[in-house]
Amino acid sequence: MSGFLFSYKSINKVYKTYFCFMNTTFSYDQLFIFSKNIFLMIGCNEMDADTATRSLLSADLRGVDSHGVARLSGYVRLWEVQRVNSKPVIKIVHETPSTAVVDGDKGLGLVVAPFAMQVAIDKAKQVGTGWVSVKNSNHFGIAGQHAMMALQYDMIGIAMTNASALVAPTFSSERMLGTNPIAVAIPAGEQPAFVADFATTTAANGKLEILQRKNEAMPLGWALTKEGEPSTNANEIKNGGSLLPLGGDKEHGSHKGYALGAIVDIFSAILSGANYGPWVPPFPAYLTIPENMPGEGIGHFFGAMRIDAFRTADEFKEHMDKWITRFRSAKTIPGQEKVIIPGDPEREMEAERMKNGIPLLKAVVEDLEALGNKFKVAL
Amino acid sequence: MSGFLFSYKSINKVYKTYFCFMNTTFSYDQLFIFSKNIFLMIGCNEMDADTATRSLLSADLRGVDSHGVARLSGYVRLWEVQRVNSKPVIKIVHETPSTAVVDGDKGLGLVVAPFAMQVAIDKAKQVGTGWVSVKNSNHFGIAGQHAMMALQYDMIGIAMTNASALVAPTFSSERMLGTNPIAVAIPAGEQPAFVADFATTTAANGKLEILQRKNEAMPLGWALTKEGEPSTNANEIKNGGSLLPLGGDKEHGSHKGYALGAIVDIFSAILSGANYGPWVPPFPAYLTIPENMPGEGIGHFFGAMRIDAFRTADEFKEHMDKWITRFRSAKTIPGQEKVIIPGDPEREMEAERMKNGIPLLKAVVEDLEALGNKFKVAL
Repeated sequence: MSGFLFSYKSINKVYKTYFCFMNTTFSYDQLFIFSKNIFLMIGCNEMDADTATRSLLSADLRGVDSHGVARLSGYVRLWEVQRVNSKPVIKIVHETPSTAVVDGDKGLGLVVAPFAMQVAIDKAKQVGTGWVSVKNSNHFGIAGQHAMMALQYDMIGIAMTNASALVAPTFSSERMLGTNPIAVAIPAGEQPAFVADFATTTAANGKLEILQRKNEAMPLGWALTKEGEPSTNANEIKNGGSLLPLGGDKEHGSHKGYALGAIVDIFSAILSGANYGPWVPPFPAYLTIPENMPGEGIGHFFGAMRIDAFRTADEFKEHMDKWITRFRSAKTIPGQEKVIIPGDPEREMEAERMKNGIPLLKAVVEDLEALGNKFKVAL
Repeated sequence: MSGFLFSYKSINKVYKTYFCFMNTTFSYDQLFIFSKNIFLMIGCNEMDADTATRSLLSADLRGVDSHGVARLSGYVRLWEVQRVNSKPVIKIVHETPSTAVVDGDKGLGLVVAPFAMQVAIDKAKQVGTGWVSVKNSNHFGIAGQHAMMALQYDMIGIAMTNASALVAPTFSSERMLGTNPIAVAIPAGEQPAFVADFATTTAANGKLEILQRKNEAMPLGWALTKEGEPSTNANEIKNGGSLLPLGGDKEHGSHKGYALGAIVDIFSAILSGANYGPWVPPFPAYLTIPENMPGEGIGHFFGAMRIDAFRTADEFKEHMDKWITRFRSAKTIPGQEKVIIPGDPEREMEAERMKNGIPLLKAVVEDLEALGNKFKVAL
């Protein structure tokens, strides 16, 4: 996930840096038709192909380019090695009035996640809240998109997922946790919804990749060498190093980021029966999966809380508007014009890209063209 | 709240630095009888005095000295200015099968919080999970203690609270959020429970106070000047500056710490009808309360999730043990002997202090003696 505050700026920076490589802008509809056709070609039914495409492209719309259509060929490769089942029978395997465990049947996380979030929403309709832990799933795109499903029902939505290990706990040099993002979407009244969506690390791997391409140094506090030493070399992850939990080092509270990542891992995988910690299978299909995996697939966790299970939605929204307005007008530090509300940059990006299209890097376009050729689907 | 990883070390550091000022060690029972008598003297009934004392002293036992008996006279002063009601009628004012809003009736948070957490637990017994937002309360001690109430029922416990504004959002120089801690307690099998309890800031104000006394510089990323400039002066908060959200600066993800603190604020206060953001009333009774407060008192949020609402407790605990054992044995960075599981240092501290007593700073002892004289209660 990208950070909500800086994705807009970072993305603009990427554009400027790689303008030369970025030769094509596609409309949302173009990419939608193409992606949906690819999902149909690998065997998804009409409804699943539609859902998967919507999940996938929400990342491109919201400016999280690393999690969007650039990953389409990666999902296909997982299907090719039979780690993704394109015809899953997703089902509830255990439940109470406010909880459920969902078995994703190795389906695309892009499809499993909306199913599970809908279960959480349906339970919240009945008893006030709904909480769903998911096993046997795959990468689900951006967490924020799933959390936001709750907004239309006047509910707070929560989504999180574990992922393959890249992050070292405080005092460790070993990759033990994924970037394990948390998203929380909260409805407001006249103001747009509050939507936080962030990895529980200092910086996303994508930020290191940008610095690699520019041959620039990385700030301290983002990653460690393979041996566990602090580093400013943006290639550390490629060299076997690890990302650092939010906080960076112990002096700046990295034990809190480690705890957050751990909580996401436990809620997503130990509650459900998925793999956890260093046993979570990696996204790239060419990487070998860990030995002696203790669970099934990767895990997610979703929550939905009906606002009127606490107070009337009108009262709540009136105060959310007051909260947002007050924070937006907070005094700024020198050099900054305004304080940002979580979700602002992504919402602005979505409006801009819906209108002017989604720019793709040349390498991504070539990857999609190759995929199109393989399946006889026009881009 | 203290960070779970470093409190033990920090506390030891404090001992060494202030050994000269630290002339008395008290047994838990001594402090329990004294504190309970003080709560009785301000009008609490027997049961509330007992509950309040248990909540308060859990901080001293677990090494969070800033939130324990050192605050007792502060609670009494809030009662003196009628901001704390010692005879509250705490009640549920709205509910569904899995949720409730509790009105604390201006009671001690130390009493209101266990009441509300019990409501969450009772709802979880019925429908799998329980979620309770609280208004009209006061400071509740350490969050971890309340979250841990769930463990004996084989439930996951969650506790959070807002607090008066000390923290500036990313890009702001204005105090808009409290240190807004989050605690999550997760049962294990043969291993001790996982208990994370942390403020959503880089460093607690208490850590700045330690540096002030030692006349030492503060690391960058902990606080800003009143004008919003980065600072290494440990007196910045006294000078009107602000604490920084977890992450410290934007380059290290402070927007994520800001989002976390905001989520705690909204769950605790906008769901319940308490005060939020810059309107949360301060703990010290001598400080004026904010004008035009939009709610009642301060707010908390509690959650309880029954493990067997997801899978059998035995299966869950077996995997939690595997998770904990694997993380404890992760490869360490140079100079560190082991990777710590959230809750380890506090549990060790509790065992040590139950056995050898709770050491108090001279200033705290004098404060307690003055309180004892006032109410004719022997320390």
